[in-house]
Amino acid sequence: MNKRVSPEQIAEGIRSGNRRFIAKGITLLESLLPADKDNAEKLLELILPYTGNALRLGITGVPGVGKSTFIENFGLHAIEQGRKVAVLAIDPSSARGGGSILGDKTRMVHLATDPAAYIRPTPSGSMSGGVAFATREAIFVCEAAGFDLIIVETVGVGQSDVLVDSMTDCFMALMLPGAGDELQGIKRGIMEMGDIFVVNKADGERMQQARIAKMQIQQGVHLMSPKRTWWAAQTLLCSALEKQGIEEIYTLCMEFYCTASENNALQAKRREQALLWMESYIRNHLITAFFENENVQQHITAITADVQAHRISPMAAGRKMLSIYLTDRA
Amino acid sequence: MNKRVSPEQIAEGIRSGNRRFIAKGITLLESLLPADKDNAEKLLELILPYTGNALRLGITGVPGVGKSTFIENFGLHAIEQGRKVAVLAIDPSSARGGGSILGDKTRMVHLATDPAAYIRPTPSGSMSGGVAFATREAIFVCEAAGFDLIIVETVGVGQSDVLVDSMTDCFMALMLPGAGDELQGIKRGIMEMGDIFVVNKADGERMQQARIAKMQIQQGVHLMSPKRTWWAAQTLLCSALEKQGIEEIYTLCMEFYCTASENNALQAKRREQALLWMESYIRNHLITAFFENENVQQHITAITADVQAHRISPMAAGRKMLSIYLTDRA
Repeated sequence: MNKRVSPEQIAEGIRSGNRRFIAKGITLLESLLPADKDNAEKLLELILPYTGNALRLGITGVPGVGKSTFIENFGLHAIEQGRKVAVLAIDPSSARGGGSILGDKTRMVHLATDPAAYIRPTPSGSMSGGVAFATREAIFVCEAAGFDLIIVETVGVGQSDVLVDSMTDCFMALMLPGAGDELQGIKRGIMEMGDIFVVNKADGERMQQARIAKMQIQQGVHLMSPKRTWWAAQTLLCSALEKQGIEEIYTLCMEFYCTASENNALQAKRREQALLWMESYIRNHLITAFFENENVQQHITAITADVQAHRISPMAAGRKMLSIYLTDRA
Repeated sequence: MNKRVSPEQIAEGIRSGNRRFIAKGITLLESLLPADKDNAEKLLELILPYTGNALRLGITGVPGVGKSTFIENFGLHAIEQGRKVAVLAIDPSSARGGGSILGDKTRMVHLATDPAAYIRPTPSGSMSGGVAFATREAIFVCEAAGFDLIIVETVGVGQSDVLVDSMTDCFMALMLPGAGDELQGIKRGIMEMGDIFVVNKADGERMQQARIAKMQIQQGVHLMSPKRTWWAAQTLLCSALEKQGIEEIYTLCMEFYCTASENNALQAKRREQALLWMESYIRNHLITAFFENENVQQHITAITADVQAHRISPMAAGRKMLSIYLTDRA
């Protein structure tokens, strides 16, 4: 495919469901190259009218909870029900580590090869490598391409759950049975955010443990003040491996979607999310404009060295850099 | 105390260890009133030369882990060893909730009334109430006042652990025994960040469970790549209530401090933190200047309504607001 493709051509390709254009579109929206910025915004404006018709489902769960197997079988079931399914990922990697913890492209082989599914592999390497996590934008691309169930998965490290919640309608948390598993990590944030809890690996000898886990989760949920007036978080058992419980969970998701629409809650949440998006757009542009400013770039290395050598306080250094920036702009 | 006190007078009061001036200084640094900004920066510059001599210890732990009791007895032991102890808190409250989850001023009564201790109560209400979390600045105030062990506590929800780690030298995580306690929340982030792990409530019938928890934590730590080349995270047992294990933990903290100094790691970490501080100062000022701009304030309500009514995309709205801002500034 020619590298010089216009935003209009990419938008058209996305609308026709062409996978190469979907990938090309997301790549453009993820690009941090200044030269790509205008085209990226143009593309987004072109596809926005065709977005908003999917159920956006966030799924979180620690490594080992069986997330890939669950998403694969959940996605295949949704496809049987007539849905077109896209899977995106927010991979916070490790604050220190670097590597992806979501695994590679070889997971979910059945779903990946289904014509009604699209799986976006996680960007390889870290954000500093010239690629931003443009998950919100990727959701829009998939919706414009006709996918009507968008799954956004994360491992729930740091703020990634909050991020996922800020761009999805329904938040599902996968949990492990086994009271002894302290690495489970049911944190207050998850208990508060979850709309649907799924205890996975509820099979064979783990069945009893799974039932206990379900009870504990429900108790934990009840300790929290309810997130929504029109929906009480529910906990279901599942064995993704044995394909048990998938149908029930899918039905519950659809119930959530219907209830949310009927209560106007879906629309309200998305309106809130649109404002958050506007704010983050403004923030990012203000900060980018600062650090890309020529005068700033000319002085930042010396100031950084001064701060590290204690010749100037961080605050005074910040003030100095701001005044260099503002003088240049005036 | 007269309300019109100069930054110089406050700095002097802080240096003399006067508690009312310490409180007044922190309040000034937390103020979001534009009128206070210059005085706040002036105060910070005045006290900065007298900072940096304390051990800055971050402590995290879920509600119920016994953090207040631990900090009280740990602090009292440190005072016996000749230290002056200040306790600050980063309270992320709840993303939705609002109320403080760290409890009120009545906790740690013995430590609170000790002349060698200072406990800063958490700001009541939410950040939007005109008070920012100025924990970093509060650390400096306490150091300038002569406190040489600064404890920064948090409940570890969302990013607050990362925040605490970005302003302290040593990171201690309090854990609960009891394999059945899935609300424990040992998440990958904590396992990676912790320098010292303490299994609290290791007493009576819980002793066996505490030993198992200690083993599990050590296993979890070993799964992570080591955070530092010169320090391996250690796990100790403790019963804060029965004052068992406190001395050993204090000794380990001091060992950490010595090793970090000898390896120049303490200085290196603080240099990094100074740069982060400069960056966050710049970010905050760029964003504040935008939202305080008269032209921006004049247009933001209408644009917000347009975004919510889908008359304009969030991105186009952001672009429009930025151009309003930049036109005004030019």
